[in-house]
This record gives sequence, structure tokens and C-alpha cells, in this order.
Amino acid sequence: MLFSVNQFNWFWETLQSEGKILGAILPRTIVFASWGLGVASFHAFQPTLELNVVGSLTTNVACNLVLGLLLVFRTNAAYERFCQGRQAWGILTVEIRNLSREIQVAIPEKDEYIHSKKTVLLKLLAAFAISTKFHLRQQTPTTELDDWLSAELLDKCRQTQNLPLEISLEIRSHLQQVCQHQTLTSVQQMIVLNQLNHLIEGLTCCERIVATSTPPAYVNFLRKLILIYCCLLPFSLVDALNWWVAFAVAAIALVLLGVDEIGSQMDNPFGDDATDLPLDEICGKIIQGVENTISSVEQESTPTPTKTSNLVEIALRKH
Amino acid sequence: MLFSVNQFNWFWETLQSEGKILGAILPRTIVFASWGLGVASFHAFQPTLELNVVGSLTTNVACNLVLGLLLVFRTNAAYERFCQGRQAWGILTVEIRNLSREIQVAIPEKDEYIHSKKTVLLKLLAAFAISTKFHLRQQTPTTELDDWLSAELLDKCRQTQNLPLEISLEIRSHLQQVCQHQTLTSVQQMIVLNQLNHLIEGLTCCERIVATSTPPAYVNFLRKLILIYCCLLPFSLVDALNWWVAFAVAAIALVLLGVDEIGSQMDNPFGDDATDLPLDEICGKIIQGVENTISSVEQESTPTPTKTSNLVEIALRKH
Amino acid sequence: MLFSVNQFNWFWETLQSEGKILGAILPRTIVFASWGLGVASFHAFQPTLELNVVGSLTTNVACNLVLGLLLVFRTNAAYERFCQGRQAWGILTVEIRNLSREIQVAIPEKDEYIHSKKTVLLKLLAAFAISTKFHLRQQTPTTELDDWLSAELLDKCRQTQNLPLEISLEIRSHLQQVCQHQTLTSVQQMIVLNQLNHLIEGLTCCERIVATSTPPAYVNFLRKLILIYCCLLPFSLVDALNWWVAFAVAAIALVLLGVDEIGSQMDNPFGDDATDLPLDEICGKIIQGVENTISSVEQESTPTPTKTSNLVEIALRKH
Amino acid sequence: MLFSVNQFNWFWETLQSEGKILGAILPRTIVFASWGLGVASFHAFQPTLELNVVGSLTTNVACNLVLGLLLVFRTNAAYERFCQGRQAWGILTVEIRNLSREIQVAIPEKDEYIHSKKTVLLKLLAAFAISTKFHLRQQTPTTELDDWLSAELLDKCRQTQNLPLEISLEIRSHLQQVCQHQTLTSVQQMIVLNQLNHLIEGLTCCERIVATSTPPAYVNFLRKLILIYCCLLPFSLVDALNWWVAFAVAAIALVLLGVDEIGSQMDNPFGDDATDLPLDEICGKIIQGVENTISSVEQESTPTPTKTSNLVEIALRKH
Amino acid sequence: MLFSVNQFNWFWETLQSEGKILGAILPRTIVFASWGLGVASFHAFQPTLELNVVGSLTTNVACNLVLGLLLVFRTNAAYERFCQGRQAWGILTVEIRNLSREIQVAIPEKDEYIHSKKTVLLKLLAAFAISTKFHLRQQTPTTELDDWLSAELLDKCRQTQNLPLEISLEIRSHLQQVCQHQTLTSVQQMIVLNQLNHLIEGLTCCERIVATSTPPAYVNFLRKLILIYCCLLPFSLVDALNWWVAFAVAAIALVLLGVDEIGSQMDNPFGDDATDLPLDEICGKIIQGVENTISSVEQESTPTPTKTSNLVEIALRKH
Repeated sequence: MLFSVNQFNWFWETLQSEGKILGAILPRTIVFASWGLGVASFHAFQPTLELNVVGSLTTNVACNLVLGLLLVFRTNAAYERFCQGRQAWGILTVEIRNLSREIQVAIPEKDEYIHSKKTVLLKLLAAFAISTKFHLRQQTPTTELDDWLSAELLDKCRQTQNLPLEISLEIRSHLQQVCQHQTLTSVQQMIVLNQLNHLIEGLTCCERIVATSTPPAYVNFLRKLILIYCCLLPFSLVDALNWWVAFAVAAIALVLLGVDEIGSQMDNPFGDDATDLPLDEICGKIIQGVENTISSVEQESTPTPTKTSNLVEIALRKH
Repeated sequence: MLFSVNQFNWFWETLQSEGKILGAILPRTIVFASWGLGVASFHAFQPTLELNVVGSLTTNVACNLVLGLLLVFRTNAAYERFCQGRQAWGILTVEIRNLSREIQVAIPEKDEYIHSKKTVLLKLLAAFAISTKFHLRQQTPTTELDDWLSAELLDKCRQTQNLPLEISLEIRSHLQQVCQHQTLTSVQQMIVLNQLNHLIEGLTCCERIVATSTPPAYVNFLRKLILIYCCLLPFSLVDALNWWVAFAVAAIALVLLGVDEIGSQMDNPFGDDATDLPLDEICGKIIQGVENTISSVEQESTPTPTKTSNLVEIALRKH
Repeated sequence: MLFSVNQFNWFWETLQSEGKILGAILPRTIVFASWGLGVASFHAFQPTLELNVVGSLTTNVACNLVLGLLLVFRTNAAYERFCQGRQAWGILTVEIRNLSREIQVAIPEKDEYIHSKKTVLLKLLAAFAISTKFHLRQQTPTTELDDWLSAELLDKCRQTQNLPLEISLEIRSHLQQVCQHQTLTSVQQMIVLNQLNHLIEGLTCCERIVATSTPPAYVNFLRKLILIYCCLLPFSLVDALNWWVAFAVAAIALVLLGVDEIGSQMDNPFGDDATDLPLDEICGKIIQGVENTISSVEQESTPTPTKTSNLVEIALRKH
Repeated sequence: MLFSVNQFNWFWETLQSEGKILGAILPRTIVFASWGLGVASFHAFQPTLELNVVGSLTTNVACNLVLGLLLVFRTNAAYERFCQGRQAWGILTVEIRNLSREIQVAIPEKDEYIHSKKTVLLKLLAAFAISTKFHLRQQTPTTELDDWLSAELLDKCRQTQNLPLEISLEIRSHLQQVCQHQTLTSVQQMIVLNQLNHLIEGLTCCERIVATSTPPAYVNFLRKLILIYCCLLPFSLVDALNWWVAFAVAAIALVLLGVDEIGSQMDNPFGDDATDLPLDEICGKIIQGVENTISSVEQESTPTPTKTSNLVEIALRKH
Repeated sequence: MLFSVNQFNWFWETLQSEGKILGAILPRTIVFASWGLGVASFHAFQPTLELNVVGSLTTNVACNLVLGLLLVFRTNAAYERFCQGRQAWGILTVEIRNLSREIQVAIPEKDEYIHSKKTVLLKLLAAFAISTKFHLRQQTPTTELDDWLSAELLDKCRQTQNLPLEISLEIRSHLQQVCQHQTLTSVQQMIVLNQLNHLIEGLTCCERIVATSTPPAYVNFLRKLILIYCCLLPFSLVDALNWWVAFAVAAIALVLLGVDEIGSQMDNPFGDDATDLPLDEICGKIIQGVENTISSVEQESTPTPTKTSNLVEIALRKH
């Protein structure tokens, strides 16, 4: 029916404290409210002073527009960074899926050496995703990579500054070794190497988002505007509201500071906050896909048809 | 003529209840209207209290701007997701068309084995589209795939978590087998494998849209703004409108909640609603294209010219 | 000079009735004006009723903002569809130019068979453009394709649902036959087949625009807002304007309905209206380019240098 | 120091008459000012008529919003066309640089014939850029191409309608001849032919911008809005401003017409105005790059190392 | 805790003078404030003149909207240029990473000659990044390139106008020499040459941003609007504010000029300001990556496995 309880969930969900936006801006809001209270007390003692004259900036339509538009555009610029970060991880997902599929299907399991190489390569792909996550969060992985990298490589990685880049070099060098065993046709090499290039593209795109924030001069100017606006606000309202002015200033500051805070939090979408990308989940899906591929490789470890077809391949190349 | 009945259709169409937007937001609107009524009754008993002071937030130009802009931008962000979803399905359509054309024309029907492989491949392409639809809707296909997949594969698929990805592996492995029968030149292999990569790109793009919603902290903050705005609204209007305030609050809440609701419904464009993509129709067109190709393959099952040309091809490769 | 007659053209051009926007919205505007008149008459008889209370929605800043922004964004979304349609036709133009150039230059005219194949292929390219135009307009071509397709193919095409797709299959199959006559190096095949893939991309992009309109629930909600806004408008103005209210409502409705109408008309950019793409002109240019290429092919029908160079090519391949 | 004279340049620069915007809109502004004067005179004789009632449209928030937003969005759509035009020329620059580099480095100077071909090809690339500029401006080049094209080709070009397209055909056909002399490996051919395809992409993108303006019905409707707005404006202001209304209307019309005019002027970014792309400068840089390459080719006209390496290349191909 | 000192950092950070925005606009603000003071003095002597009539432009909603929107959109257009510049450097980073990886892994170190070529190539890549930075800033590098280029090349570079383009020619010509020593398979050549093409794409994109500013007529018109707006502003406020008008005009001018200034400063994102891209840092990371690769090349200078595998490669090619 039209009035099911379900439809009132909206209120419940809205009131739940999702994220730390309100927590983060509450102290600042209180500061502005106190300022409003201060102005109101001054007004109470000196009611003849026309304080509202001072606040004329806050009633200018163009200034209100510029402040409002800049705030919302800044938030949207941050949201765009969020989307670009997501797309970069989309590229990583696509290329790891494609690379692991090509490695699984295209490399024929001629002997034990190739078989082990395939498993190493697939594990390196999973390690690439995991290490990218830690690299972007500027954390050092502790035990998360132990299952995916050999002990030797792990030691090497501890010293490097750009772990995923190091792993991509490792992938490339293993691919080179596999290619030299006449396993991949030139078409397949081309495709696999292009996929590796795209992997670096995805990684560099993420690094770009982390390294280049919204121009600080822009953000700082916007905050100065908010500060000026909220400081002048009580002057223009005190005549009409008297002591209520503290409440009004708090409410308006809450809106403006909230939008600014959301923008700040979305600026770096690779963190742990509620406004950030679910990197752990995305990584988990990538790893699961690689695990599926590894298990299917091991399952098909005695692939008679592929072996013969590989001979055909070599025969063709030899003609 | 200028005043044909036709031109008044606009009113008729506009009044029809397209979608469930109004139905979904009506209960919330009534809640806000009741709140407005409550404020009006309080005002009727205590007409000396200056309630409009409390509602000063709702007359602040910057706050109105920020609320209005955020609402509309959020809706546009959702609309962009809708468009991206459509584009991803456009990629699927293009690549399935291109892949089925290449499979039909480029693979010469040397013997019965290749002929059956071709049919299997074309059917897998249709199954890819169908399974993507079900995967995105998080449903399990019941009988829709029976015509397109072998019973064996169907069983295997029941256990997998990512059905379209599994099917793409199947396609790749059939392509590998076909390639090993000297049927495709390296150019054609390159093109076909690239098309398969793009197929995964389309799939991953759809999954990305489903997996990553608009940041919840952003949406939640926006809803808190709407809630605060609509709760303070009657205070600023009650002086002028008296009992009419309930009606005014309802009308304004209807607008704001409606825009929020449209944004929510467009956030996941792969569902069944009136705001969603016509996935069934798009899928239907893809399947129809594949069916046409299959029927033309069967029709040309004794293709003498292609056979000879294939010999030329092999001759050329052998030199 | 500064005051040349030329500079007053602006008024003249502006007043000319470009498009059918005004014609289309006039009846609706008159309806709203009559409603305004009705409200005014009621007000004239009952001047003590405070009707302006009912219209408080239309003076709420946030609602005005949301309505205005949604309207303009919807128009811009439609304009974006228009631009995407234009870009898709740009892709078609680029690829037909590139394909016809490659076919003309790269395929050496070894014998009469190849010569005729080249002409057929070039004609098919022109037919692709023409049939795409008719396909997007959901019309059936009558005699426009007679010059470009063989009678046999014309009959076949009459039965198909997707004519350009059928023609692309035909192009691919002719290309396959040409390739089998050792005419194209693998590099040239790769390039030509990729161009064909892009052709399908352009076609599918156009089909996507036709098949998926702006979500109807979104458009319908926006129209409901306009309807409510214009119906409540006279109540808020009647106090001040009296009988002039009909004129004011008509003017405001004209603006809002006009923007809505432009959005509607641009939604499908492949029609015949003044807001639509000049498809006939674009098609004409494509055909002219193909005709130029055909005439230059026929002119060079005894190309001695190309023949020898072809031998070099074959020699190289044979080594 | 903080108060250096430098910092007051802003005023000086702002007051300089950059572009012809003001000159173009001044006559129209005067027309509207006269209209304002007319309304003011009428008001002076009939002060009892409430003219401001007629101008109620100009005080409606939604209409003001729609007008302002449409105007600004239209300007931004035009600016986007400007950017796309710049990007298309960026593509031309990139591809001419890449093509001339490949032609210079990759084609070994085996004999005089190849050497002359290289110079012809490089000159054709410069001619392509120059002729594109003239083609987009719908002018006929007079002597600008004399240095870059042979007299024979110049005659041929005088008859063609699409000069750059003709030159691209010429480039392709020279490349084909060069390829047939065993000079380019298949990899280099692939790269060079792809670059030629991109060149056509850049050209077609420019042509698209010239051929498809912003939908005329949209622009015309917007101008009708400006006309109506400016005509109704004096009625709503005349009560308060009396004779000053002419000045106010002129100022407001100046703003609105100016934004409209900027949009108009940016719509075709390939002209000669101050709002247009610096095509002459861009072309100059492209030509300079080609000239550098030609001079370095002539300088290296006896390249011994390349010759031997070419033999290695041929040897490799022969195996 | 909720009220940690941390959370008040916002105020501290906001008040710090990040960038030179305020310093740059202060003199202009003072000019406008003096103008406001002048108007106020005039009003004090002639209080009967209704000066606010002159300022009616500044209270027109449509004009305020157009001014505000144009200002913010101009800033966003500048921000987009900033982002495009960042993306272009992202392309440079990706391609230099990919190129250096391919050069390191794919080119087998057959002899001393190839080893030295590899080091030269890697150094040229670093030099490309450095010289691009100086080229975009229109500076001449002094000693920064000494480590990366040979003395001979350094001399040559001093004479050229486009240093990075010259270096790309050098890279291409070294690659050609390396290719001629049978070191790279055709697949690897294809990939490496494509990466070089993308490098030129990144460079040309940066040059495009430097060479084409936002259309000057557009920016100039916007500044004229600000000038007119700020000059008329005191007239509309002087009645209410008296001497305070200077303060109000200063505050509003600060906002408008500040947004204009941010737009100006972001227009060329390759400078040294706080609003510019951290080019030195980005360059540093690129160089560090190349250095890592060079050191790993030197470390592996006696690569036995690669040597044998190279033989396999050659054997395969020879068949």
C-alpha cells in the first residue's frame, strides 16, 4: 500500500550519522554561533548602532551567487576527482581481468617451468592491485602481500619507493621470459604488452589524483570568503533576530561549512572515510578473480588439447 | 491548424502518472504538511511569538542557492551515471556486433568442427549479453540462457559468482581452439581479441556503476539539508499564511523531495523502473542481431568460394 | 560606420519565426492565460480573499531555483545528445573518407574482377551513409539507394530490419574476398578492418541516441513542476496585477514552456526540424566524397605503376 | 612593493577596447535606450497608469534565472566549440609532427628517388595545414601554397572543393609508392597510416564545427527572450527611475546583448576576430617544424649509417 | 574528543596568506573603496539627489546572475585548463615509465654498443621531461640538462626553438639505430613507437594550453562588467549606508576581483605560483623513475639469461 512503513525509512536513514561531516564541522559552527552571540550582546547594549550596515555584503545578490556557486562547483570538482579515481580503478580491474585471462588461455602449459611462471604472473597481478591500494594510502603493507610475492621479491619491495611500479617491472620481465619460450604468438604479445601499458596508465592516474589537489590558492580563497561571510552575517541579521541570531548563524554556517567539508573529504578519494572509494571491496573482487583463474590453471595443469594445439602453433611459425 | 487537439496532449501526458516518483514521495510530503499544520496550530494559540525568526535560514539567499544547486547537481550526477550505463551497453552492442560479424565472415567453414565452433561462439555472445543483464540486476537467470549455453556450461555457471566473466573466459578459450586450426590470420586474431577486451571493458564499466554509488556522506548531507529546510520552512511562512502554511510546505517539499527521489532512482540505472535503462529491449536487439548472424551462417554452410579462398590464405601463409 | 544598417539586422533576424517553437507552445500558453483570466475574475468578485497565499510556492527562492536549473539542465542534456549525434556522424564521415581512400589507393587494380570489387565497395560505403540516415528516421528508402546497391542486394535489404548493419556485413564480406586475392598487405587489412569497426561504432552511437531518450520520469516530473508553477502563479500575482495577470502568466509560461519545448525537440536530433542536424547536407558531402573517389578510380583504371609495385609486394611476401 | 604601478594595469587593460564586442552591440543598446526613453515620456504624460504591472515578467525569479542561465550556458557551449576547434588543431599539430618525424627517420635514403619523395611528402604535410586553414575560412589560397605544392598539383587543387582532403589522398598515394620500394617495415607502415587517419579525423572535426552551428531555433528563442525582456524592462522600472530608465535599460541591455554577442562570435572559432583561434600562428609553428625537418633531411642527404642499417633491415626481411 | 584543538586548525589555515591572490587584488580594492568614499562624500553634500537611481543595474536579478555565473564559469574554464595540463603531464609520466620499462626489459644487452645506447635513451627520456618543463615556462635550462645530454647535443639544443621536440627526434633516431641491430621484435617496435607518439601528444597538449588562452575578448568583457558593476555599486548603497559604503564596496569588489584573479592565475598552469602545477615535483618523480631504471640496467649489465633468450628470439625470427 501507499503508506507502508517502508516509505518512512527516508527520515530514519537521513537522521543517521553517516560519515563524519557533522562531527567535523560542529566545533567551527559553535565558534560562529558564539560570534553571533557576541554581536547580539553588543547590539543589546548599544541598540542605537545600525550594525546591519556592516553586513550589507551578505545581502548582495552577486556575492551570494559567487559564494554559492564557487562552493558547489568546488564540491563538484572534488566529486569529479572521486569519479576519476573510480575510473582509474576500473581500468585496473579491466586490465587485470584481461591480462589474467590471456595468461591463462594463451600461454600453453608446455612444461613445469611455464606452469610455474603462469602462477607467478597471476600472483603478481593480484599483488599489483594490493600494492597500489597501499601505495595510494601511503601505507606500508605488512602481511597482505605475503601470499602473492616470493620472499626475495618482498625484501626488494621493502626498499623501493613505488611498489606497484616495481611489480610492473617484475611482470614485464617475467613476460619477456615467457615470450622467449615460444609460447605467445606476436599478436598475443602485442595484446598483453598493451594491457600492461594500460595498467601503468591506471596507476599513474591514481597517483596524479593523490599528488595534485585542487589548487590550494583557490580552496583557501573560498574559505576566506566563507569566513568573511559568516563573520558579517550576524550584523545584517541582528536587528531582526536579536538573540536568535546565534541560532541563525549556526544554521547557515552549518550548511556552508558542510559543503566545504564534503569537498575536502572527497578531494582524496583513496582514504578510509565514508566519502571514499570502497578500495578494499574493489581489491577483494580483483583478487577473487585472480584466485579463480589460478585455481582453473591448476585444475587444467595437464591440458592435452592445448599442448597439441601449441605444436600446431609452432609448426605454423616454423613452416 | 494552429489549434489542433494534438497540441493539448502536453497537458494530458504531463498529468499521467509516469513512474513512481509522486507515489514514493507522497508519504514524506504528508509528514512535512502535518508538521506545517502543527506549527500553524501553535501559532494560532500563541500569535505573539515571532516564529518567523526561527525560519530565517530559509530566506538566506546563499543557503537557498547551495541547497538548490546541490540538489540539481546531484540529479545531474545521477543522470550522468545513467548515460554512462547506456554507453557501456552501447560498447557491448558494438563489440558483439563486430565480433559476430568477424566470426561469421572471417572464419572459413573448413569442416563440421569449425562450423559447430562458430555456432557455439555466436551463441556465447548472446549469452554474454543476457547474463550481463541478470548479473547487473543481481538476479539468477532461470531459463533465459538455456537456448544459448550447453547443459554442461549451464551447470558450471550456476556455481560462479560472475557469470558474464565466466562466459568471456569460455569465448576466449573457444577462440583459442579456433585459432589453432589455422582459420584466422594474425590480423583477424588481433582484431577479435581486442574486441573481446572491449567487451570486458563494457562489463566492468557497468559493474563499476552498480558497485559505486554517489558517496553516501554527500547524499546524506544533502538530505539532512532538505530535512532542516523543510522543518524550518513553516516558521518563516506561518505569519503570512496561517493555516495555509501546511499546503505551502507540502508543495515546496514535493519539489525538493521529488528531485532527490529522481536522483536516487537514477543512481542505479540497471533496474526495472521507469527511470531505468530499457535493458530488456537493448538485450533483445543484441540477441536478434546474433540470431540473424547464426541463421546466415547456417544458410551458407556449404560455402564453396570461401573454401577455396581459405586455401589461398593457407597457401600464402605457407609460402 | 558604427551605425550601418547591417547592425540592426539582429532585430530583424530575431523576430523572424525560426523553427516551430512558438507555434508549438502558443496553444498551451493560451490555456495558462485563460486560467490566469479565470483567477482574475474570481478575484474581482471576491476581492477580500487573500489568494496570494495560495501562490506562495512561486515566490520561494529554492523552488524557483530548482525549477529554473532543472529546466536549463534538461535543455543542456538535450543539447549534449545533439552534439553526440553530430560527433557520431563525424565518425561516419571520417571512416568513410578513410576507408574509401584506403580502398582506392591500397588495393592494386590487378584485373577486372578487383576493379569491379573496388567500385562495389565504394558504392556500398555511400549506401551505408544513406541507409543510416533513413534507418535513424525510421523511414524506408524508396529510390535513393538504387544507384548504390545492386538490384539483388536491394531486394535482400527490403526484408532486413537493420539496413546499415546488413550493408556493413556486405562490405566485410566483399573485403574478405578482396583480401583473398592477395591484394592487401596485413597492415592494410588491419587498418581497413579497424575502420569498419569504427563505422559500426558510429552507427550504434546514433541508434543509442534514438533508442534511449532522457528518462521519461525525469521529463514528466519537470513538466508537472511547470504545470503546478504556472497554475499557482496567478494567485500570487493577482493582488498586484488584477486583470493584467493573464498577460503576465502568458509571458512567464511562454518562457518556461519554450525552454521545455526546445529540450523536447532536440532530444531526437535526427529528424527534419529546424532544431535537428542537417543530415541531408552531411550525407550529401559524404556521397560527393565517395563519387570523387569512384571517378578517380575509373580514371586510373589502367594504372601501370601500381601494377608493378604490386608485384614487388607479392615478391616481398613470397620471399 | 604592494602598491607598484604595475598593479593598476588591470584598469588600463580592462578599459582598452579589446575585440569588437562593444562596437557590435552599441547600436542595439541605443535602440533599447530609446525605447526606455519612449516609455519614460509616456509615463511623464500619463503618471496615473501603473505601467510597472506590464513589466512583472522581469521581476519573476524563475524567468530571470532561465534567461540568465540560458545566456551563460549558450556562451559556454560556444566556448566549448572554441576548445574543440583548438583540440582538432592540436591533433593536426601532433600528427604532422609525428608523421614528419617518421618520414624523416624511418624512410632510409636509398637513392635520389626516395630522397625526392621524402621532400615532397614533408612539403605536402605543410600544405595540408595551410590548406585546412583556408578551407575552414572558406577562402581560396592565392600564393601561400606555391612553395609547398608542385605546379601540376596546384592546378588540380584549384578545381577541387575540399583541398585538404585532396592533399591527403596525394600523401597517401606517395606513401604507397614509397612503401613499394621496400623502405618501410610493416610496423612503420602501420604507424604512418594510422597517423594519416588521425589527420583526417582532425580535419573532419574542424569541418564539423564549421558546418554545424548551435541549433538556430535555440539561439533564436534565446534572442526573442532578450528582446521581450528588454522591452518589458522599462515598464517595471519607470515608476522608480523616471527619465533615468533609459540609462538603466541601456546598461542592462549592454550586459545581456554582450554575452549573446560573445557567444555568436565564438560560435565559429576559425575566423579572424579577436575571439577566434590564432590559426595563423598555429599554422606558422607547424610549417616551421616541417621546415626544420626538411632542412635536417637535406643536411643528412648522404647518410651512410642509415644505408647500411637499411641493408640489415632488408636482410632481416629476406631471411 | 569532539573538541580537540585539531578541529580549530581550519581557522588558522584559512587565515594564512596562501598564494598572492589577496596581495594582487588589494590595490584595486582600495581604488574601488576610494571611489565609494567619493560617492559618499558627494552624497553627504547633496543628500537630496537620488543617487540610488543610478545604481539600479546592480539590483537587477538577471544582471547579477549573468555576472556571477560568467565569473564562476570563467574560473572553472581556467580550472579545466589546469586539469588538462595535469593530465598532459600524466601522459608524459605514463609514457616515460612505459618507454623506460620497455627499453630496459625488451632490448637485450647483446654488446657494449647496445648497452650504451640503452643508457643514452633512458637519459634522453629524463631530458625530455626536464626540457618540456623549461620549454613551457619559456626559460632556457642552464645546467639542469648537463647530466642527461651529451655535450654535443647540448650545443645543438641551444640553437633550437623547441627543445623537447628536438630531443624526441633524437630519441626516435636512436631507437631506429637500436632496431637495426635486430634487438627489438616488430611487436616491441610497434609499442615503443606508439609510446613515442603519445609523448609528442602530451607535449603538444601542454603547448596548446600555453599558446591559447581563454579568448581575450571574453575575459575583457567580463572585466568591463566587473568595473561597471563596482562603479555603480556605491550609488545604489549610499542612501542606506552613508560613509559605510566604502567598506561595503571594498568587500564586494574583493570577492569579484578575487575570483577574476584566481581565474587569471590558473589560466597558465605551468608557472611558479601557488595556483600552478607542482611541475618540479612531477619532474623529480619522473627523473627518479628513470634513474632507478638506469641503475637497474647497469646492475644487470651481464645478463646471461637475457642473452640466451635473445638467441632464441633471433632463432625464431630466422626459422
